[in-house]
Amino acid sequence: MKQYLKQDEWKIIEEGLNPHYNQISESVFSLGNGRMGQRANFEEDYSGETLQGSYVAGVYYPDKTRVGWWKNGYPEYFAKVLNAPSWINIKLKVENQRLDLATCTVENFVRVLDMKTGLLQRSFVATLPGGKKVAVDAKRFCSMADGEIGAIRYQVTALNFSGEISIELSVDADVVNKDSNYDEKFWNEVYKEAQTGSAIVTAETRKTLFHVTTAMTYAIHSGGKPAAIKVGENMREKYADNVVQTEIKQDIPLVIFKYAAVLSSENHAKDKLVEHARAKLTEALTAGFDSLFEQHAKVWAHKWEECDITIDGDIAAQQGIRFNIFQLTQTYTGEDERLNIGPKGFTGEKYGGSTYWDTEAYCLPFFLSTAEEKVARNLLVYRYKHLPKAIENAQKLGFTGGAAFYPFVTMNGEECHNEWEITFEEIHRTSAMAYAMRDYVDYTGDQHYFTEFGLEVLIGIARFWEQRVNWSSDKNKYVILGVTGPNEYENNVNNNWYTNYLGAWTLRFAQQAINYVKGHDAKRYAEIVAKTNFNEKAETEKWKHISDNMYYPYDTRRKVILQQDGFLDKELIRAADLKPEFRPLNQKWSWDRILRSCFIKQADVLQGIFLFEDDFDLETIRKNFDFYEPMTVHESSLSPCVHVILASKLGYKEQAYQFYLRTARLDLDDYNNDTEEGCHITSMAGTWMSVVKGFGGMRVRDGKLHFTPFIPDQWKSYSFRVEFRGRVLKVKVSNEKTETILEHGEPLEVMMHGKPVLLK
Amino acid sequence: MKQYLKQDEWKIIEEGLNPHYNQISESVFSLGNGRMGQRANFEEDYSGETLQGSYVAGVYYPDKTRVGWWKNGYPEYFAKVLNAPSWINIKLKVENQRLDLATCTVENFVRVLDMKTGLLQRSFVATLPGGKKVAVDAKRFCSMADGEIGAIRYQVTALNFSGEISIELSVDADVVNKDSNYDEKFWNEVYKEAQTGSAIVTAETRKTLFHVTTAMTYAIHSGGKPAAIKVGENMREKYADNVVQTEIKQDIPLVIFKYAAVLSSENHAKDKLVEHARAKLTEALTAGFDSLFEQHAKVWAHKWEECDITIDGDIAAQQGIRFNIFQLTQTYTGEDERLNIGPKGFTGEKYGGSTYWDTEAYCLPFFLSTAEEKVARNLLVYRYKHLPKAIENAQKLGFTGGAAFYPFVTMNGEECHNEWEITFEEIHRTSAMAYAMRDYVDYTGDQHYFTEFGLEVLIGIARFWEQRVNWSSDKNKYVILGVTGPNEYENNVNNNWYTNYLGAWTLRFAQQAINYVKGHDAKRYAEIVAKTNFNEKAETEKWKHISDNMYYPYDTRRKVILQQDGFLDKELIRAADLKPEFRPLNQKWSWDRILRSCFIKQADVLQGIFLFEDDFDLETIRKNFDFYEPMTVHESSLSPCVHVILASKLGYKEQAYQFYLRTARLDLDDYNNDTEEGCHITSMAGTWMSVVKGFGGMRVRDGKLHFTPFIPDQWKSYSFRVEFRGRVLKVKVSNEKTETILEHGEPLEVMMHGKPVLLK
Repeated sequence: MKQYLKQDEWKIIEEGLNPHYNQISESVFSLGNGRMGQRANFEEDYSGETLQGSYVAGVYYPDKTRVGWWKNGYPEYFAKVLNAPSWINIKLKVENQRLDLATCTVENFVRVLDMKTGLLQRSFVATLPGGKKVAVDAKRFCSMADGEIGAIRYQVTALNFSGEISIELSVDADVVNKDSNYDEKFWNEVYKEAQTGSAIVTAETRKTLFHVTTAMTYAIHSGGKPAAIKVGENMREKYADNVVQTEIKQDIPLVIFKYAAVLSSENHAKDKLVEHARAKLTEALTAGFDSLFEQHAKVWAHKWEECDITIDGDIAAQQGIRFNIFQLTQTYTGEDERLNIGPKGFTGEKYGGSTYWDTEAYCLPFFLSTAEEKVARNLLVYRYKHLPKAIENAQKLGFTGGAAFYPFVTMNGEECHNEWEITFEEIHRTSAMAYAMRDYVDYTGDQHYFTEFGLEVLIGIARFWEQRVNWSSDKNKYVILGVTGPNEYENNVNNNWYTNYLGAWTLRFAQQAINYVKGHDAKRYAEIVAKTNFNEKAETEKWKHISDNMYYPYDTRRKVILQQDGFLDKELIRAADLKPEFRPLNQKWSWDRILRSCFIKQADVLQGIFLFEDDFDLETIRKNFDFYEPMTVHESSLSPCVHVILASKLGYKEQAYQFYLRTARLDLDDYNNDTEEGCHITSMAGTWMSVVKGFGGMRVRDGKLHFTPFIPDQWKSYSFRVEFRGRVLKVKVSNEKTETILEHGEPLEVMMHGKPVLLK
Repeated sequence: MKQYLKQDEWKIIEEGLNPHYNQISESVFSLGNGRMGQRANFEEDYSGETLQGSYVAGVYYPDKTRVGWWKNGYPEYFAKVLNAPSWINIKLKVENQRLDLATCTVENFVRVLDMKTGLLQRSFVATLPGGKKVAVDAKRFCSMADGEIGAIRYQVTALNFSGEISIELSVDADVVNKDSNYDEKFWNEVYKEAQTGSAIVTAETRKTLFHVTTAMTYAIHSGGKPAAIKVGENMREKYADNVVQTEIKQDIPLVIFKYAAVLSSENHAKDKLVEHARAKLTEALTAGFDSLFEQHAKVWAHKWEECDITIDGDIAAQQGIRFNIFQLTQTYTGEDERLNIGPKGFTGEKYGGSTYWDTEAYCLPFFLSTAEEKVARNLLVYRYKHLPKAIENAQKLGFTGGAAFYPFVTMNGEECHNEWEITFEEIHRTSAMAYAMRDYVDYTGDQHYFTEFGLEVLIGIARFWEQRVNWSSDKNKYVILGVTGPNEYENNVNNNWYTNYLGAWTLRFAQQAINYVKGHDAKRYAEIVAKTNFNEKAETEKWKHISDNMYYPYDTRRKVILQQDGFLDKELIRAADLKPEFRPLNQKWSWDRILRSCFIKQADVLQGIFLFEDDFDLETIRKNFDFYEPMTVHESSLSPCVHVILASKLGYKEQAYQFYLRTARLDLDDYNNDTEEGCHITSMAGTWMSVVKGFGGMRVRDGKLHFTPFIPDQWKSYSFRVEFRGRVLKVKVSNEKTETILEHGEPLEVMMHGKPVLLK
């Protein structure tokens, strides 16, 4: 845990240059707009430690590198998010000396991310090795108003000299991935040009052949007027620039405006990319920085209007929740149904894939409550479109008859992760697609989704479970062998309770969807039966037999659910009793030691109780929480939010608050010592849930919103806003009272602490 | 299973060119001599499918390629056996047309491996695209008399023309590994020369910096006399050759003698390699092919004298056993204590490492009985020398206080395999070192080995087990969680019976060694105590408590040992009932499906019963054999031999015979569909055990040899020879009688079917 960032309600602030923490800051201060993203790398040269990262949504590389034993059934490739061509470079030479913060003396360094407007600012005074001093003030943003535009305002002031300055403004596709083996590069050059005033490079990804055109133009002002400049154009492989020479006069700010257009063949015909990029540049240059920024800030204002959470009396908590909402919002805008939410968003290379079950289990509730219905629906349809690939994926693993096994990591519906204990065994994820449907239908009331898309998916998933269980004649029950649960610190276990429970539930849920579709649209039902070759009677009878006879491990002595068979053979130790030098376990312990320990990476039994809360009485929830919570190390970013919600329900106020801080400030305080690799984007939705479902106690039951709010002792008040079936509600909770205001829409009855309240 | 090879007592014969099986033949017909090895690649060009393989003992490359998630505790690298510079090339152009069997019409193709003399022969008639016909007869061997020499006699006869022929004789270090990612090459050039009459290349392995000098010289005869030739020398990167032009006259054989010297920096100073190689060439050229071959064949005659097994009346069985003994003998000669026995020997790249537990568990008994005592002792000392690395290895995984965890795969004592379920969890291998000691001491009576080397190793291993168990308060026993047993078709299981049994036994065995050393050499004992910082009382008390209170899974209903906890949850299906298209499972099923099935790759409970046979009554052995054997798919080459031995003991004669064929002809008949990757060298020792311990029933108990021979119905008689404590015995078994002849040494009492027999 590190606490070097300053707390503020709307801003993330780093004061002083921290070379040692630079890669963490590069993650935390990242910018994005749903189409592109950029780590907070410096514009100028930096020879210190840095993870350069520029990302374009949907652009990836399938790495086929093999090492160790290849398991039959592994996918062809392991997807890598690609570090895309760089557009931010503004490299300065002051009378032939490079401005490089690793070699200069640096004073007054401040980096600020203004979350309200999505603006990254940086200012410092640097003394070059020869003694020349410059003050720099840099601002940039990735436009939320136009996802293909980035803009930089970079102001340099000579503090103790006048002289010659050279400014290299480039677009550069000669970039590497940190995770590439053999320093392999993943981009080939397709086109480049460097003209006076602009530079363009189109690069193509190897194998996947995506084209990305990166273009830049600029304007340079001195003392508020266009500066007299001399321009040289340069090109080398995958690179084009303008090198501008100009005079810098002491105390007169020189301002460089750099405008970038980043266009991908996902959105333009390949042969139009350069033409469209040129048009974008003209547009940007004509509008200018201030006007572009104004449009951008307007979109942010609207976003905050929809999803802001306020917390009064606790700046750390307020900053944390806004940081989470900010990052989530700039990662996924819900506008493009081909896109999804990568675990690191646009903040790092790790988790090379785009889509995990995180989306369904953690992100969906956020979008359900803070955006129009179609955003959540798009996320479901994304998986519907992948159904044929999920069926193929199941076939590769030996399943038959239309069973659907959704991939653990995917770019286009195909599995693209190869680690047998996850790829083959973390099977609960396929039912995350079913659970998301339940969440969606419960929240929106849109049961028609079953008819249109949902049922086909559910039949596929149910068929998967039917084949994945087996009858144990020893237990006289159905068992599920060889799985990895959400707690990935156990691999290849038998009868993971969460998995068994979710599997059995899915079989029942599929029946429910069948009943609905059959009852509401017999023609469409017949169509689905024909399309899926569905033998209703035989299949559903089998499903019922399985869900009625599923085995669930249980400890009769302690009266707790058992995470899996054999769990009680472990030494049951509290995480609090672990030596601090052992944490985080995944960086300090070998894998076998983690596996045979009792320590839980992420809520597993508790995750199941969270999802199916109404199936359990409070006493059961308490017993299980009290048993498992102390063994949970929360080394998955997805863990603490579930604990906030259950602790809140159990009235463990202080614990709930502590878990909240952990999830809300996970990246800001670098709890898991891994923020340098990128921020934990998908779990940020869990932070939102912590407030709304945890402290606010929001649930949907039988089409009605329920709230059981309480307020952590550290707070004066908090508020959140949710959209629900055409209404917008604002809930404001203080120690004295809870106000629920219907901001928009028809009157609505909600349940407050179990009592109906009519909102008008 | 394929049966395209002809059966013969002493020869492996392939008639007709089988391009589709060529890579299998390249494995089966491999040659070696303990220092170098060569797959049966063609000397001339071949554009068909081939796995080029030339190997130099002890030369490897540490691959750091990473893919997927890296687990903390993984070793730095994954070792790769390197395809070494090629010395066999004799590329022919007949009037500018390349001789390439993939593009010629080929008749009368015959490939023969004469196991008696270690000679590979190949003959064929090829019609070149233009109609010219040549007959080729090629012979080659890797000298067993001088491990650094290879020799080829390559005879070409023009059948329907006279004309110009060009012969390219090269040494070529510009070679690739099949398993290299990104086509990376692992050799750099250090030195090369091409002079008239010879060519030399010294290449260096990347990272490991081994130097290998490959040199060649030649003589060319026409009609028995030196031919008139024109020589051109060529060099390119990592390559040097002589291209010889000569006339070939119809029906007059042209004979090319190529002599190669292959020297490695493991055996010569780097700066002397070229000089020594030149001397070798001169030596070889002076001696000539016939004389070199005579010396080579003499060594083979002596080897066969030591270890031949004869089987009368069953050519398939006879050919099988000789093939196994042949390959094993040419892989490891026991002369160099730095070397060991790789699972594929010199026949392929796979299993990138050199040493597995195979050596201790399977190969040691062969060398104990067929070679002087020091060969087996060298194998033990090899591991003694690695003890510090085994302690380091344990430390990396969090063990402390001198615990020793031997690597699963190693080149120099360090672990060099990264697959968590094996590397971290297949922990039984560390006790294979202890069991080998027991085997050795039982067989030789050399208890002094404990004093000199053994005890230190045993203390280290015992400490490992002490820390690896944990107390289960649920079971009130010690348990061992998260392991992989010898049956690698189960991963990360709890309480694998074999592992628990072996662990507990090791703790008792260590005590036995302590008692011996203490009683026989108090001074040395004190030295060991000091060196290992051994707290005898506390540590041995703990060991006793663990071995007295170890948990062993057991099925009280069936009265069988359970392979691991939870085994009875599986569907228990007979392997015989599996659809044939599912076999081999590891090529047809995804890993999860294999894991949750009951199918056993390799004897696991049965392996334990085999090792600790005297701990079990016959009824127990029978029950377990009858339970587990039907579920065993024998997809490890190490599996069938154990089944031969137990089936023999149980009187299951026909089954024993069938298992025998499977182990003996595993590669000849390609049972597991993987011989193209190389032969299963280490399991070949298991074939030997099948005859001697299986059919011959040989055991050592209390320093005495026991035999309970029987003869399979298919055989008329069989015989084997064993060395035992200074004697050489020959055992000859026929339907009528068993003859045991003391061929050498003092009189010896042996037990024959439980009755003492004095041999004089």
